[in-house]
Amino acid sequence: MKRPTIADVARRAGVSKGAVSYALNGQPGVSAATRQRILAIAAEIGFNPSSAARALSGSTADAVGLALCRPARTLGIEPFFMELISGVEAELSARSYALTLQVVADQDAEIAVYRRWWGERRVDGVLVCDLRASDRRVPALEELGLPAVVIGGPGGTGQLASVWSDDAAALVETVEYLTALGHRRIARVGGLPDLLHTEIRTEAFARVCRRLDLPDAVTVPSDYTGEEGARATRRLLSTPDRPTAVIYDNDVMAIAGLSVAQEMGLGVPADLSIVAWDDSPLCQLVHPSLTALGRDIPAYGANAARQLLAVIGGTSVGALQDETAHLTPRGSTAPPRVR
Amino acid sequence: MKRPTIADVARRAGVSKGAVSYALNGQPGVSAATRQRILAIAAEIGFNPSSAARALSGSTADAVGLALCRPARTLGIEPFFMELISGVEAELSARSYALTLQVVADQDAEIAVYRRWWGERRVDGVLVCDLRASDRRVPALEELGLPAVVIGGPGGTGQLASVWSDDAAALVETVEYLTALGHRRIARVGGLPDLLHTEIRTEAFARVCRRLDLPDAVTVPSDYTGEEGARATRRLLSTPDRPTAVIYDNDVMAIAGLSVAQEMGLGVPADLSIVAWDDSPLCQLVHPSLTALGRDIPAYGANAARQLLAVIGGTSVGALQDETAHLTPRGSTAPPRVR
Repeated sequence: MKRPTIADVARRAGVSKGAVSYALNGQPGVSAATRQRILAIAAEIGFNPSSAARALSGSTADAVGLALCRPARTLGIEPFFMELISGVEAELSARSYALTLQVVADQDAEIAVYRRWWGERRVDGVLVCDLRASDRRVPALEELGLPAVVIGGPGGTGQLASVWSDDAAALVETVEYLTALGHRRIARVGGLPDLLHTEIRTEAFARVCRRLDLPDAVTVPSDYTGEEGARATRRLLSTPDRPTAVIYDNDVMAIAGLSVAQEMGLGVPADLSIVAWDDSPLCQLVHPSLTALGRDIPAYGANAARQLLAVIGGTSVGALQDETAHLTPRGSTAPPRVR
Repeated sequence: MKRPTIADVARRAGVSKGAVSYALNGQPGVSAATRQRILAIAAEIGFNPSSAARALSGSTADAVGLALCRPARTLGIEPFFMELISGVEAELSARSYALTLQVVADQDAEIAVYRRWWGERRVDGVLVCDLRASDRRVPALEELGLPAVVIGGPGGTGQLASVWSDDAAALVETVEYLTALGHRRIARVGGLPDLLHTEIRTEAFARVCRRLDLPDAVTVPSDYTGEEGARATRRLLSTPDRPTAVIYDNDVMAIAGLSVAQEMGLGVPADLSIVAWDDSPLCQLVHPSLTALGRDIPAYGANAARQLLAVIGGTSVGALQDETAHLTPRGSTAPPRVR
């Protein structure tokens, strides 16, 4: 028996192949009645590409999509994403939703994935990570009408729902704590500069340092890798007025910074205090264990998933503020030896 | 307009509701002709639960499932899974397959997920991780007929396809290297004892130590966490004839072991040599950087995905041997101070 083709469906329905395609993919361009008829004929003659099945009127995918725009090989090193995913997944599976994961090369590829997922009804909604300033994905998602929750902000999320945490407040708390310990030369090794939350942290750092009259405060940009964290630390510690405290935008760079201090013969915390953002079990594996800014990342992921399921269910949700990261002092911070 | 129910479909088709359910879920119990008729009627009257759409004759999910049976909150700490997933994902997305991820509590829950995925045609096949000795998932998958590739072995995979790496050979190479450096008291902090590859490593370790006449060789079991790695190291280093070299079954425990040595005032590598399995960027973040057994984990994941797509495509594939981990000596190994 010959496998039926799209042309067979078009002939029997008395429409063009394009109309069949529109009907199968749930796109506009055919009336509801024609669409229903085309789908019935497709089912009758056994023409069933996967997207046809999924595009059947009213069917849901019972799946949520997460596209990650990071080089695949570096995803493993940061606990953040896997912790986030584990939280998302716990919430979704309790509601019988699947999580569909895709690693993409850039924002264009990511937008193309959203179009395909939505056109083929592969997902009912998406979670959006790594929000940038003027992020092109926001208007693209608004235009598609694909339910979405942005993990990030505040701001820059257009009409989309979002979940965010007050990074500026956490950074200010940290700088005030280091200043109270007696530090005057504080530096920061920042994350990817085009991410919105990096920008928010950089601005907050500059602002609090001006307020506390710390003129040498500097942010060195990086890419979150241990290599760049080590390089930035070496550069900072080689200046004549080297900082006595460094804040790192992730745990991996902070651990790399600790190694560089040891390699350069500097004591931590006597000669250098270190604070890591994104507290994770890694921070307690090293010696001394790292003072860190932490919050419950799996819970953050679960909140984002819960928001998304509400959006998919037709509830209008806005921007949800998650907990602010809190500072856990450990062995890597102390008053500076030389004031 | 009232939403059509399964009873409406049954009435119009002149069959029982059970028959409609069988037809929609792709289960046996109805003839092919009846099934086709039921599906056509369902499409015609607009009855389309998501599983009905997916169960349409011949439709594929274009998705591959991966169920991870690890506590969600510990998944983030080990780079292994995210690296594996990134490799799987790269191969799948090049072939327009999606990756569906689910974290499960235990093997029963995992088998239930497989049944649901396959019954609802949510996936076309699955990748199976963390193979155990006498793994119940293997006969369950064989019975379901769900295409599967086991990531693990050799052996214990029944009729299922698999991808495996020769852990025994890698362990022997490591012990021989440490012995060549002059070590006679070598210990190992092993992974979860009920995993097949842990068993394979433990047996290989015992065998090579007997052959090389190292009577004190001992494996301390653990759960891969830094806490247990630290605890096991403290216990080992507190014995009168403490080992001069320790092999750890993952990178996280090796880093914890390095911290314990520093905390106890022992020099690495002068007083203690450390070898980490699963080389990852973490191993190069610490000071000294860790000698490690490494292989290309994303490539391993890509190989597994390629095998699975072959199985899904109807090709019979057996057990594929992936590369053996190789030892990269770094700063954490040296001849022992006291021979």
